[in-house]
Amino acid sequence: MIIIMDPRATGEEIEAIQQEITNIGFIPFINPGVERKVIAVLGEFDVSKADLSDHFQAMPGVARVELISDLWKLASRAYHPENSIVQIGNVKIGGNEIIVAAGPCSIESEEQMLGLAHEAKASGAKMLRGGAFKPRSSPYAFQGMGEEGLKILAKAGKETGLPVVTEIMDAHELDVVCKYADVLQIGARNMQNYSLLKKVGTTRHPVVLKRGPGSKIKDLLMSAEYIMAGGNQSVILCERGITTFEDATRNTTDINAVPVLKNWTHLPVILDPSHATGNWHYVGSIAKAGIAAGADGLLIETHSDPAHAMSDGPQSLKPKKFSELMGQLARIAEAVDRSINL
Amino acid sequence: MIIIMDPRATGEEIEAIQQEITNIGFIPFINPGVERKVIAVLGEFDVSKADLSDHFQAMPGVARVELISDLWKLASRAYHPENSIVQIGNVKIGGNEIIVAAGPCSIESEEQMLGLAHEAKASGAKMLRGGAFKPRSSPYAFQGMGEEGLKILAKAGKETGLPVVTEIMDAHELDVVCKYADVLQIGARNMQNYSLLKKVGTTRHPVVLKRGPGSKIKDLLMSAEYIMAGGNQSVILCERGITTFEDATRNTTDINAVPVLKNWTHLPVILDPSHATGNWHYVGSIAKAGIAAGADGLLIETHSDPAHAMSDGPQSLKPKKFSELMGQLARIAEAVDRSINL
Amino acid sequence: MIIIMDPRATGEEIEAIQQEITNIGFIPFINPGVERKVIAVLGEFDVSKADLSDHFQAMPGVARVELISDLWKLASRAYHPENSIVQIGNVKIGGNEIIVAAGPCSIESEEQMLGLAHEAKASGAKMLRGGAFKPRSSPYAFQGMGEEGLKILAKAGKETGLPVVTEIMDAHELDVVCKYADVLQIGARNMQNYSLLKKVGTTRHPVVLKRGPGSKIKDLLMSAEYIMAGGNQSVILCERGITTFEDATRNTTDINAVPVLKNWTHLPVILDPSHATGNWHYVGSIAKAGIAAGADGLLIETHSDPAHAMSDGPQSLKPKKFSELMGQLARIAEAVDRSINL
Amino acid sequence: MIIIMDPRATGEEIEAIQQEITNIGFIPFINPGVERKVIAVLGEFDVSKADLSDHFQAMPGVARVELISDLWKLASRAYHPENSIVQIGNVKIGGNEIIVAAGPCSIESEEQMLGLAHEAKASGAKMLRGGAFKPRSSPYAFQGMGEEGLKILAKAGKETGLPVVTEIMDAHELDVVCKYADVLQIGARNMQNYSLLKKVGTTRHPVVLKRGPGSKIKDLLMSAEYIMAGGNQSVILCERGITTFEDATRNTTDINAVPVLKNWTHLPVILDPSHATGNWHYVGSIAKAGIAAGADGLLIETHSDPAHAMSDGPQSLKPKKFSELMGQLARIAEAVDRSINL
Repeated sequence: MIIIMDPRATGEEIEAIQQEITNIGFIPFINPGVERKVIAVLGEFDVSKADLSDHFQAMPGVARVELISDLWKLASRAYHPENSIVQIGNVKIGGNEIIVAAGPCSIESEEQMLGLAHEAKASGAKMLRGGAFKPRSSPYAFQGMGEEGLKILAKAGKETGLPVVTEIMDAHELDVVCKYADVLQIGARNMQNYSLLKKVGTTRHPVVLKRGPGSKIKDLLMSAEYIMAGGNQSVILCERGITTFEDATRNTTDINAVPVLKNWTHLPVILDPSHATGNWHYVGSIAKAGIAAGADGLLIETHSDPAHAMSDGPQSLKPKKFSELMGQLARIAEAVDRSINL
Repeated sequence: MIIIMDPRATGEEIEAIQQEITNIGFIPFINPGVERKVIAVLGEFDVSKADLSDHFQAMPGVARVELISDLWKLASRAYHPENSIVQIGNVKIGGNEIIVAAGPCSIESEEQMLGLAHEAKASGAKMLRGGAFKPRSSPYAFQGMGEEGLKILAKAGKETGLPVVTEIMDAHELDVVCKYADVLQIGARNMQNYSLLKKVGTTRHPVVLKRGPGSKIKDLLMSAEYIMAGGNQSVILCERGITTFEDATRNTTDINAVPVLKNWTHLPVILDPSHATGNWHYVGSIAKAGIAAGADGLLIETHSDPAHAMSDGPQSLKPKKFSELMGQLARIAEAVDRSINL
Repeated sequence: MIIIMDPRATGEEIEAIQQEITNIGFIPFINPGVERKVIAVLGEFDVSKADLSDHFQAMPGVARVELISDLWKLASRAYHPENSIVQIGNVKIGGNEIIVAAGPCSIESEEQMLGLAHEAKASGAKMLRGGAFKPRSSPYAFQGMGEEGLKILAKAGKETGLPVVTEIMDAHELDVVCKYADVLQIGARNMQNYSLLKKVGTTRHPVVLKRGPGSKIKDLLMSAEYIMAGGNQSVILCERGITTFEDATRNTTDINAVPVLKNWTHLPVILDPSHATGNWHYVGSIAKAGIAAGADGLLIETHSDPAHAMSDGPQSLKPKKFSELMGQLARIAEAVDRSINL
Repeated sequence: MIIIMDPRATGEEIEAIQQEITNIGFIPFINPGVERKVIAVLGEFDVSKADLSDHFQAMPGVARVELISDLWKLASRAYHPENSIVQIGNVKIGGNEIIVAAGPCSIESEEQMLGLAHEAKASGAKMLRGGAFKPRSSPYAFQGMGEEGLKILAKAGKETGLPVVTEIMDAHELDVVCKYADVLQIGARNMQNYSLLKKVGTTRHPVVLKRGPGSKIKDLLMSAEYIMAGGNQSVILCERGITTFEDATRNTTDINAVPVLKNWTHLPVILDPSHATGNWHYVGSIAKAGIAAGADGLLIETHSDPAHAMSDGPQSLKPKKFSELMGQLARIAEAVDRSINL
């Protein structure tokens, strides 16, 4: 930690900072000879000291405090240099094979879900997605089928032999969701719902953690750390677009986040081109870009009749388009020395 | 609703849109004579039709869909033209008097909370704030005192006669928080935690709903609508800064949101200059700006010893500074024909 | 154009709007039966009517005005459905072959530029880049070699047979830059320097127009329209990252802009992964993503000794890394049925 | 400057950094005992060393470089602790009196400009604004009256005795604009047009420098530094809204920028509520907020017939509204112990 004093800081204020550094068991070191004093805090800093930055920031005469260490540990590549591979049944995410999960935004009926599931499998998807508890911005919009939907999803998983991922919105749904789902999804709007993160950290179900649209990459890693600190190391990070001034697309895909995350963390990184664009016309291009940039997997929304989808129709691919896209994605995967097994 | 077709849309695609509009009970009207067709959807649109926009967006040949009506109803000024006044004990928010709530970010001890409460009251605060359940970005940081903290907060309220507001993070804490608090706060990170919003909508406790840092004003109103649709009309909206590219301050105060909200909704609007700046040096300026812009109240963090605060020390005002500020705020209130009763 | 009235608009206000629409030669059509009036403006709208939107927006009782038509014409795909191919010597941008331009941020010496030029060519680059007039955020930083640098760049072009692109910062430099450069570059900070755009529109030199970091895709197309309206149709659009709240990288690559631009315009679209990331570690991933997403070319900064580069060292690739990357890019190009000729 | 090494940096890489620090005349100091090495660069750092940060950032093994010193000097409050007062005729900006400039976006005719000028003066404005060279996003929109407009503006200034401010878009217009204008305005889109900044720095005309909508406060100060480094110290900074994800208003007023700038620089700070909101309904609220937050002045667009304004009608106040607002602003000014002399 580096404490940068205001140029107008008094001698007493600088003295007080040094004294405080000593009091809490660190060694102060003053960088002399510049227009403003800079005080380095020497010693073993660990993540439990997260609050120290605010502590010094609030002291008189301090301009700002720069943290040197990251505030996440379990999620960091320094702590775990090798790529983590998250195992879901016989599917592995984070290895050489790129895993594509497909399915509808909302589970709407058994017929719909089973149909899409079989088509997804036939096209090379290795995981199924489908929402039963839906976070909708309008209270008057379809809110999902609930447990009934989960049963259908589980059936689709059983019939196809593919693991299923579904969103959990509330800690009290944990048991029911864990009963039917192979992978829990924390949605973008709940990325900083810390009660939910803690609860999910107590399970051993793999978790897809979606980045909040207004959250920095650092925040995403801190939320992963919440789950991991609870004991659950099987976290898969998902970039799904951020909120920016550009309104040509529903969100702005932060494609830079893919190589940044692969550099900073050992956890698998996947991309959701459906939400990241909000428009099926662009899903294919961004799916390809994601794999080219180094993503370990994709989450793609499909629907047989997008115009009548209960949610997210405009960004859903029809099964035929999805199938064609999978062929293209396999070629990109090969061009980066990875594989998609169709 | 206006459906704007792609210039390349075929006659069949346009025909299909018109047919579908008719099928669902509306009347299609085509704007002729321009390079691309625009189809107006005539009829009584209501909020339960929220999904129709996506429905048409997903149909072939559609470039985009423009909603004309707002998707919130209960929160809209069209529905309720007069300002709503939320009553909390004998405090009224939304009327001529401007209400300032003060207190620490985290409740740390009885001595701390009671001391700050008495000082806040003496300076003219009409409500107390203090957190017992804390949403911290690090799992290793102080997470709040829990129910013990709530008891202290209630005691501070009782001793001073001021109502108390505190954050609820999880639906299962509802009973315990309602037991001790006069006003429930939904924190910025939970603004789109719809499970929590629905639950809070079932109570009759007034709610301070903080805007998520990555959320549009429209999203804030949709979240208010969730609470109101549940039956709880006592919602107070709080601007607390948004996430932008500017990093000179912790957040960017969206001061424009104050007059925009006063125009769009009848609900009271308050400002939290502490989070909106993240730096106590700037809290006074922004608090004054908030009142000048038309806010109905302020939420200000105070602490006797910010450097040793368990959270948010850098943005907390010492009681003496707060007291001086209140004098300045009363002058601004008067200059806009409102009042702060010191 | 659609005029959406405030729900509180009076009959006189609505009448006045209709009258005005008639006065200016259009036909008003009122959408009846909804809570607020919506007035469609029927007739032949063309780009010279750009100001009409503001005109109606400023009239009493108007809530907002929605433009249906785009405000760019020459740049639109509706106007020119086929991809435009910009010819630069014997290089074609916008066709099946993907063109990579390489070279240093700043031209620093003849030795440096010639060395990098030969290495770029050997690795498969088809165009050279290098800056002689440098827009630096500090007035105390290196400002470029000026005309001396242009001479060196032209020499590098001549020796390698590759066309050269360089930035023009000021209209009065037009003659000198045109004398030495094959392609003019408008830098991101000058994307809305309309004086410069108009001037460049009078030449027949191809132009690389870089997107401003705070500019929407629509704004980029309007700036292209400035050049094209001046008579110069050879415009190449360049995505180089936008300004967002994410600070893990210098800019956020708006990868969505690639397919959006290919959909909205016929002009060639290239990507600059060097500025879009600001970090050479990530340049390769984002370059690959750009081609996978559909870009027609790339602009990549190279330097033999990045630590001693006069500018942008941290985002420059060493020639050896660049050469390796070109091999990888050729594979991605092939996977999307395009080519990079090494 | 603090160099933060990657945890994976080798001993040779750390050694090379230290050697390089010594080579360029500074003293390296290694902060020992933490998981990653941090090397402080000791010595007299000055603004001419702006490039050093990139230099080290580009060296192997470096994670990131933190600058301690600001990169602006002449504009900094450390360099010039007292508030600067910019004198324009007998108007002083930056002192106790708050200066309001008013007038149309575009000068449209002598009648229009003179009428508005007299009304502005009668309402208490102390400066006139009006554009003759207009930066319009569409090449087909009205581009301003040019020199003819400047003559009219100068006449309005002469008749009212108020100094006039107008935008300069291109360095080659310098002589003509200086001939007629008392104050030069650099528009938001040209904030980083360094050629123009340098040219304006050679004059002794006061300059209103508007913040670019995608530019940080730091960038604004660097652009001011360009002008000041050229010898012109009379720079007035203008906040006019930034580009964010919020689309309820044309821009987002960064009200925080007001106290931040007053803290960081000695230069006068003014606010343009017309552009910062884009909607005359909100101009009054934000104008009041600006003064409450500490701004030294305001720039407000007025028009007698906004619906027929050649530009920016929707955000222009009619003279009567402006006059009422001035009365309200004077009360706010008084409440912060400043004055507006009506």
